[in-house]
Order: sequence, then structure tokens, then C-alpha cells
Amino acid sequence: MPKVEFHPSGQSVQVPAQTRLLDAARQAGVAIESPCGGDGACGRCLVRITGGQVDSRSLGTLPDAAIAEGYVLACATQILGEDLTVEVPEQAALEGGQFASENETHLVRQELLPRQWEFDPLAVKWLLQVEPPRLESGLSDLDRLIHAIQRDWGPRPVEFALLGIRKLADTLRAAGGQVTATLVRDSGRLHVIDIEPGDTTLRHFAIAVDVGTTTIAVQLIDLVVAQVLAAQSDYNEQIACGLDVIGRINYARAPERLEELRSRVLGTINRLIRQVAGSRGVAPEEISNAAISGNTVMTHLLLGLNPEYLRLAPYAPTLLHVPYLHNSEIGIAINPQAWIHFSPCVGSYVGGDITAGILCTDLAAPSEDISLFIDIGTNGEIVLGNNSFLMACACSAGPAFEGGGIECGMRASTGAIEKVWIDAATGTARYATVGNVQPRGICGSGMIDLVAHLFLTGWIDPAGKFNRSRPCPAIRVEGRRATYTLASAEESATGKALIITEIDIENIIRTKASIYSAVALMLNQVGLGFEDLRHIYIAGGFGRYLDLENATIIGLIPDLPRERFRYIGNSSLMGSYMVVVSQDFRQRQLELARRMTYLELNTDPAYMEQYTGALFLPHTDPARFPSLKKG
Amino acid sequence: MPKVEFHPSGQSVQVPAQTRLLDAARQAGVAIESPCGGDGACGRCLVRITGGQVDSRSLGTLPDAAIAEGYVLACATQILGEDLTVEVPEQAALEGGQFASENETHLVRQELLPRQWEFDPLAVKWLLQVEPPRLESGLSDLDRLIHAIQRDWGPRPVEFALLGIRKLADTLRAAGGQVTATLVRDSGRLHVIDIEPGDTTLRHFAIAVDVGTTTIAVQLIDLVVAQVLAAQSDYNEQIACGLDVIGRINYARAPERLEELRSRVLGTINRLIRQVAGSRGVAPEEISNAAISGNTVMTHLLLGLNPEYLRLAPYAPTLLHVPYLHNSEIGIAINPQAWIHFSPCVGSYVGGDITAGILCTDLAAPSEDISLFIDIGTNGEIVLGNNSFLMACACSAGPAFEGGGIECGMRASTGAIEKVWIDAATGTARYATVGNVQPRGICGSGMIDLVAHLFLTGWIDPAGKFNRSRPCPAIRVEGRRATYTLASAEESATGKALIITEIDIENIIRTKASIYSAVALMLNQVGLGFEDLRHIYIAGGFGRYLDLENATIIGLIPDLPRERFRYIGNSSLMGSYMVVVSQDFRQRQLELARRMTYLELNTDPAYMEQYTGALFLPHTDPARFPSLKKG
Repeated sequence: MPKVEFHPSGQSVQVPAQTRLLDAARQAGVAIESPCGGDGACGRCLVRITGGQVDSRSLGTLPDAAIAEGYVLACATQILGEDLTVEVPEQAALEGGQFASENETHLVRQELLPRQWEFDPLAVKWLLQVEPPRLESGLSDLDRLIHAIQRDWGPRPVEFALLGIRKLADTLRAAGGQVTATLVRDSGRLHVIDIEPGDTTLRHFAIAVDVGTTTIAVQLIDLVVAQVLAAQSDYNEQIACGLDVIGRINYARAPERLEELRSRVLGTINRLIRQVAGSRGVAPEEISNAAISGNTVMTHLLLGLNPEYLRLAPYAPTLLHVPYLHNSEIGIAINPQAWIHFSPCVGSYVGGDITAGILCTDLAAPSEDISLFIDIGTNGEIVLGNNSFLMACACSAGPAFEGGGIECGMRASTGAIEKVWIDAATGTARYATVGNVQPRGICGSGMIDLVAHLFLTGWIDPAGKFNRSRPCPAIRVEGRRATYTLASAEESATGKALIITEIDIENIIRTKASIYSAVALMLNQVGLGFEDLRHIYIAGGFGRYLDLENATIIGLIPDLPRERFRYIGNSSLMGSYMVVVSQDFRQRQLELARRMTYLELNTDPAYMEQYTGALFLPHTDPARFPSLKKG
Repeated sequence: MPKVEFHPSGQSVQVPAQTRLLDAARQAGVAIESPCGGDGACGRCLVRITGGQVDSRSLGTLPDAAIAEGYVLACATQILGEDLTVEVPEQAALEGGQFASENETHLVRQELLPRQWEFDPLAVKWLLQVEPPRLESGLSDLDRLIHAIQRDWGPRPVEFALLGIRKLADTLRAAGGQVTATLVRDSGRLHVIDIEPGDTTLRHFAIAVDVGTTTIAVQLIDLVVAQVLAAQSDYNEQIACGLDVIGRINYARAPERLEELRSRVLGTINRLIRQVAGSRGVAPEEISNAAISGNTVMTHLLLGLNPEYLRLAPYAPTLLHVPYLHNSEIGIAINPQAWIHFSPCVGSYVGGDITAGILCTDLAAPSEDISLFIDIGTNGEIVLGNNSFLMACACSAGPAFEGGGIECGMRASTGAIEKVWIDAATGTARYATVGNVQPRGICGSGMIDLVAHLFLTGWIDPAGKFNRSRPCPAIRVEGRRATYTLASAEESATGKALIITEIDIENIIRTKASIYSAVALMLNQVGLGFEDLRHIYIAGGFGRYLDLENATIIGLIPDLPRERFRYIGNSSLMGSYMVVVSQDFRQRQLELARRMTYLELNTDPAYMEQYTGALFLPHTDPARFPSLKKG
């Protein structure tokens, strides 16, 4: 079989001829972006063949100069019979093959994280000495194992799965009766989910997963010290079936398509798990704990549950609180007997990512201060409250800030334009990219900067329309289509100019309006004003590079003292980490979910009123943004 | 695909060309005997092609006359492209396609069977009215189902499997919220193993299974009335891998062969289940209870457990008491979420077939009378006791009485010679067959008759050797091989003469000696004599046609008043029936298993002494058989 070697990482893999290069990269553990799901549509999976021949359908779509240098789209390229060397251009800028964002405990206030005495996962490892078989005792292997467990844990019922029993005879005899049992404690019972020969108590691992509509992130955790060993993220392979949750629900109507969605999200999760586990030499069987946080639709799809009724009034999900399920029923690439924890959902559009996320905020602390939590992903979810009330809602912000539905949009990974400045005189842009490499697209924070600066410098009006009366070399109007060129084809890594269209700007304004108006409505509901907000937590990948000033200028966030804002990163992933290392935090999460009331925006006429008012830059009512007038 | 129609039953099936005729018959639900496992060795699967062409490798092995009439061996015949009609010769004599032996509650004393008020299976069906989804309640489908269950059952924990949750949304909406839940009660918890729309409480079924080393028997039970609806049995497909448990253990040494054994026994069970369920229009999902009784080796192999350590001192099995296991882990062709009950084993060679079997005897009643239970299958297991003690042992009787290892042996099904009389003057035999058809072989009771009569009429001596000094047309001696012809090639349905060899007789004597001597040793151990036995229960398929007089003549059973003996049929299957319809009986079985002490014969030198003494007809000590002297 031909061998494919990827540079600069040096990772390689042997695959059969006719394998798609993108799939070979995945098997080798090399992360290549493919937001379109490998459909040849987005052009982001550009790689360069530096040795060997391939069969590529991508060549017609690339500039001649790129073709001459050996560039192809990995998704549209098949490996032939011979060995290949492949250069993955931006890979070098990734931090050890992972996005820094997936391991950022430092973003969360330290007093909110589990302390050492709270480390207590659901499945624990326990060293046992089992007595040898004896003719006169007449005891089976299982009898003797149960005796050894009950000697330490008292006379509680002990349960087993068949897969574990199958290896019992040989395991008990491998190390003179010394075995390590992995036990799940479940209201008075013990479930033996694994048994290994000898003392393996120091090899005890967990997986924390954030299942986003657009992006999936996975952490590998060493449970002995509750440390994150490795993290990895990638686009959810479901993207090819619909950009947002409504698209996915529509796609899932036929049972085989529901199964396809289930298999795609499971495929992404398992690929990421294999990458993080493989990078640390951890076998799947050594991972016996997992916590998964996703919105309600993602949770349904991962479990293979029909999401149809989430879309139809009265919006009743099949489940909100997922009972403990055995991994053998779900199929995560960890120990098949593990029990999987799903963060509880609160409503059809406030899911486990939110009940995990608020664990990273004062909303989970006994504080009287009013806090606001905003998680901007493909949907925008907002939680408002303190120690006496908790209210949550969801607005269909759309995936613009994650790059979806924006002509040159991408998420905040290598090559994304994440900062923009506009020259007031000429209207031309300067920008900075993630990883300081050639630009490949624009991410959420870049869009906010761009729109804010275009607005401040007068190149767009409060409605987001280009100023057609003032000539600007970067602005091109062709009939109804008007575009702003951020980077020329020569500057761009993709060989195509990076632009933003009027429709993109409209999209961005709709997104910011839906979020701002939801916050305004919630405050109204409880008789509070913006000024009552003491802490504003911003979660979601896009927030990393967010400029608060520019976000205020476009009217995405309220105009409040900037020190009240805190960016907490991927709080859904961090919350998953917390509940997988600590049963106390799991309990706390359940209580928060129980306390949370769900505000349905779609059926509230006051929401449309708020939303319409927010469809301007910064707002139809400028009095709401007093600091901007001063500036 | 060609269609194959079987006569006289009229059952038919469509199968691809190249399918083996024996497999097509199985798919059509037509029972054809194949004790050799379909290896072309035994010649029992003789059928006649009455329409269409086949490709048969069997023709060279059959007599010309048979070939001319269209006879082939179903195991060595492949279907070609065209439709076939096939006559299954002896099928007509089967009682409705089933062996009468599998449904014989009448053999068990009525006061030992579960009464109506004891009908109480592990999984019950429960009709529920679930409230409709409402926006204001914010409750998920699962929440509302749990509320409905707890309204009736109190606030106990309710657990689910993912497969059940997957169909919840549609099921709840199919009949206005009326659903029937199948619930397993498990020390304070409820497990929802199925949920169906509407009221299905009257469709509630169970399966009882006896997994014998040679034969597997299955009952379909209507749980609403605790009646057996259909029963079916066939050879265990593992036979091709070894005739007795030691042979199977040796075969299982390589992991892929262990898996092969598991798959063969599961294949036989599932074929039988599909036959009984199909015959009554019952879908697999409607069967939510199952009890399986098998010896310890069969239990291990069905569960895929390495049986190696059962054969090696100190003979410690992986398990004796099987915890409740979910069918999704085992793979029986019933509801995948069902919990499967296995009758508990007591030692490596006293298994669940025995703890099920003694439920059919006074050993399960509070009686002071000493009872003896003898189950003669491929192994012989014996239980001795009363309400104050229970002792069990196993002797490796071998499969002779089930037809194994006997040149013309077969089990007691259609065409088996089950009664034999010898003319004292000429030495020629008269016989009767099961179903009164042409003979195809000889079964256990026929062997006992034959040996007893040959002995009484002086054609064999007490050591089982033919009388070579007295000419007899039926006896032929060629060097060391001596045979007795029971039926000529012309009389026989197989076209070959049915004979019994001196080696067969030796085999039969060893079998009877091992059983008799085990009983003698057990009585010695507790200081009792044969005369203390008030009830002697004989179980096992072969016992049906057993002539007590002849069994006493060969010294298989002790010489006691004949009214103390009772034939109880397949008690392992009947015991499985009892525990699957009644939780009380399940409890009783567990207590009996706990009380039973296991006597290991192999390590007891007194056993060899008893055994050697019993290797004569009836015994080296004729004083033990006083009634024979009188006769």
C-alpha cells in the first residue's frame, strides 16, 4: 500500500490506492480544515504535493500558479499506487497540532474549578487481590471477584456486563489474582465495567467533549491528577448536511439520513478521540469516563433520536436529561462498557453546552450579583441570573461568527483574519491573521472589527449599506452586488481575493441584533436594566480575539464598563471537564439545570420589536450606547 | 431466486442458487435431522427430490435403488437455478412439526407446577396513559413517560436503554399517548425494556430453552395464561465440533473456535425460536422474557466464556450463578432489551439443567422422603436428597443413549427403533419405531431393550460379548469385529442395514455402569441404601420409551419396586418454563442451588471401585438385583 507522509509534522500513514487524500490525512491524525464537509466547495483543504503523483479533480478550480506549485484540494484528490509527500501549508502554525483554545483552564476563575478534594469521577479504579481457585471452596471466578470487591466496599450488589466476564478467567490468572477493577458507583450498587490484570490504577483517563453544531472539541484528561493531557478540535462532519440546527433537523427526516447524521457526528468525535489518545499512547479501553455537552439537537442526533418534534410546536424533545447510557449503545471510541454522562438540556434550544458552560461563571457560585452568560456559536444562548433566579433563552443567531454563511468566512483557526483596521482616508484595510500566516478567510472577531471600522469611517451607513457616492478602490458595486476587498488574490493563501459582501454585512447585523435584543428582552422580563449586569461572560471560539470596543460599536454587546466583561473560551468543553473529574460538579450542574427557567422567544411578540430596533449600527436608539457618542 | 417446496408439510422458501438444501429446509422451518452436523457422515438427512434438478455430492454414497427414486442427502446437495419440490420422508409422523416430548407438563406432578397466583414473570407489560406534550410544561417525552410510570409504581428510579428511547417520540404520538411499557422490576428499580403504542398487554410471550450438549429444545409460552403455545427441538449444531463436553472444551482452545461454538449453539437456539414464534405469528420483539437452562459447559459456550478451566484442576468455572444479562449482549432472537435468566449452575459438571430439572421433583417440595433424580443426557447428572440435604454429582456417561458414538444410534425421534424383542430360538429381532415408520437407527430405549434381550436369551454374556459358539443368522463375526443385525438394508429407510457392534454394547455397558455406580457411591456417602429411595425421577429424552424391566436387567437402575420410578421428560425445559413464568420459582431454584453440595467423583477412589463392579450385566454382585433371580 502506498505510504503518505505529511509535512511539516512528519506524520505518515499507509492506505490503499484510491483513498481520498483528506481521509488519509485524518487517518494519519493530521488536521486539515474542511468546513464544507469535503464537498470541494470551500477550498480550505488546500495542500501541496511535493513528491509522487495523484489523481485530482480539483485542478480546474485552482489558479494556474497554484497548480504549477503542486497545490490540490485534499478532498478532491485520490492517492494512486505510489508513495506521496504532502505539505500542509498552515499546519506549522497550529500549536502542537491542536488549537490552543481547547485547553484553557486559565480563562476560568480559579475558584470556580474543582479542587483536589473534589476530584472524584463516576468510574473509579480499584486494586483488588482475588483469592485463588480452590476445589474445596467450589467458588467460581465471578464469586471470588465479588467477594474481593465486597471486602472493600461492603455487601452492596455488584453487577457486570458480559464483555467483562468474558476476559475474567484469564485476567484473574495473569498476575496471581491481582487485578484492577474499574467500578461505577450507582446509588448503592457497583457496576464492574472493566477488569485488568495487575495494578493499573495510575492509568485512568477521561474524555470531555463539546459537540457544537459547527465545531467539535475533545480533551483527554489524566484522572489521577485531573490534568488535560491533549486537546483537539475540528469541524463537525454534519456540516455537509446543513449549516444550522434547523438544517440538520430537516435533513434528518428520513431514517437513513438520521443515521447518517448520527454516524457523521460520531465519526468526528471518534477521530478526535483517537488523535488525542494516540498522541499520548492511551488505549481506548483505558478511558472509562466521558462527559459530553452539546445543544439539544446535537444531543438528539448523537443518540440517534428523531429531532423532528424539536422543530414543531410545542417543541417537546425526546429527552432533556439523558439517563446514564452504556457506551456500547452509543459507540464512542473509548471503553465500550463506560457509562457516558451527557450534560442536561433545559429546553429544545438551551442544551447541555449551556448547563456545562455556566459552571465556568458566577452563575454557579452562591453570588447575589447579576451575571449574564452569552455563548455565541451557531445558535446564541443566553443565561441571566444570580443565586436566586436563573433564566435562559436561545436566539437563532446563525453561524456567521463561526464563518458559516459568510462568503469568505471561517472559524478562528490558522490563517483566519482576526483583526482589521480601516484607513479612514483610502478605505483600504490592514489585518492580522491567526498564526501570522497568509490569510485564508475571515473569522468572527475580524468581521466585527471590519464592520465597526467601515461604519466608523463612513464606508457603510447605520443600515450596513456601502456608501455608493464616495469612491473607494476596495469597494466594487456590480448591479445589486456590492463587495469590499479585504485581501487581494495575490495576498491570499487560496489564490482568490478575500471579500465581504453587502449580504454578508446584513447577515452579521442580523446576528448581532438577535443576540442584543434577546438580552434586552430578558432584562425586561425580570425588571432589570443593562446597568444591573455585574458580570458578562462571553463564551464560544469566536470570543477569543473579540475587541470589546468594536463589539460595542456594532451594538452586539451592551455599552457597559469594559472590566465587567470576561471571555471564558469554550465553556461547554471546560464544563465537561469539570463534571467528568468531579461528581460534586455533576450534581451542581443537575441542580442548575433544574433551577433554570426557559424563555421561549419565538412566541413572544416583544422579541420581534426588540429585534427590529437592533437591526442598525449600533441601534435605532443611540441613547443606549452613550460611550460611543463621547468617542 | 428458486423456490423450494417441502412436502408433505407444504412449507416453502425462496433461496439463492447454490444454497445447501439442508439450509433451505431450516430457513423454511422444516426439521430435518442432521446429528453429524451436516457433514455427510450420518446419512440421516435423506430426502427425495420429486421435482427439479439439484447438484448432489451425496449420490455415490447412496444405494442405486434410492438414487433412482430421487433420494439425496440434504446436507450434501446444492440447489441450482430452478424451483424444487422435496419430499421429507418421515416428516409426516412428527406431531405438527414438533416432538411431543417438548410440551409435556402432564409428566410433572400437578402440585409441583406454578399455580395461577404464582404467574409473575420478570418482565411485565403495563398499560400507561402519558400526558400530551405542552409548551408550558417544558417536559420532554421521557419526563412524561417517567411521570406516568411513577404514578402507578411509586417514586422508584426508572431506567432505560437507548434503543427504547429511540422510538419513544413516535410511539408516544401514535395512539394519543396510550402506550404499553414492558417493565423489569429489579430490587426497587424499574427498567423499561420496551414501549409499544396502544394496548398490547395481551401479547406477552416468553421463551424457555434447554441447551443440551446433544439436543436443544425451545418452548414458546403465552405469559397471559402461562401456556406453552409451541415447542421444537433439534440437534445442537455444536455436535460437529465434538460429541461431549470434553470434546467441545478441547475444540474451544483457539479464540476463533470458541466464537464458532458460541455462534453454532446460538444459531440452533435462534432457528428454533424463529420456528416456534413464526408458527404462532409472534414477532421477536414481543418476547421479553427468557429462561435458559444448560449444563455448565453449555452455559459458558453460549456466553462465549473460555471453558478451559472447567477441564483443569481445580475445575473453577468463570461463573456458576449467571447475573442478569441483557439480551443485546447475548443475541437470542427475541427482544434485544430483554433480561435473560440462566438457571444457576452448582459445579463444573452440575449445571442449570439440573437446578431446573429438580423443580419437577419432590426435591423441590418440603418432603422428608429421600428422592433420587437421574438426568441421562450426554452426561449423567444425579441428585440425591430431601428437605434436609441435597447432594449432586456428575458422571461422564457419554452420549450413547442419545445415539452418539453408537454406529446406528440416533435420538428418540421419528424412525428410531425404540422397542426391541429377540426371539430366543432364532435370535432374530422384532422392533417398533417412533412414528411407526421404516427404521433409520436405534435410540437409547431400543439399545437397552436390545442388550437386555440379547443377555436374557443368551446371545451375549454378562461382559457383553457375543456368544460365538452358537450360530445365529443375525450375528456376524469378522475377525475382531462382531455385529448383530437388527434390520436389513431392505427394511431400513436409509438403504443400509441397521446393526449393533460389540463395541457399541461395550459402550452401552460403560454408560450404564457410570450411572449406577454414581448412585451407589452417593448413597454410601450419606449412609443410606438403595431401599431408602422413595422416589426415583428419570429425566432426559431417552427415558420416554424406557422399559424399567429391561433397564433393571442391564443394571442401569437399581432393582426397586417399579412404582417408585417416574419419568418426567425433559425436566430442564420444564424447569425453564416454571422459572420464566414465576418469580417465586426462580427464587426457589436459587435456594435449591445454594443448598446443593457437589460431589466430585473424579477425585474419589471409591468411585472407580464401584464403577468396575458395575461393568457387567447386571452387576458383578447379582445379589444387588434380587428380582431378576426370581424371574
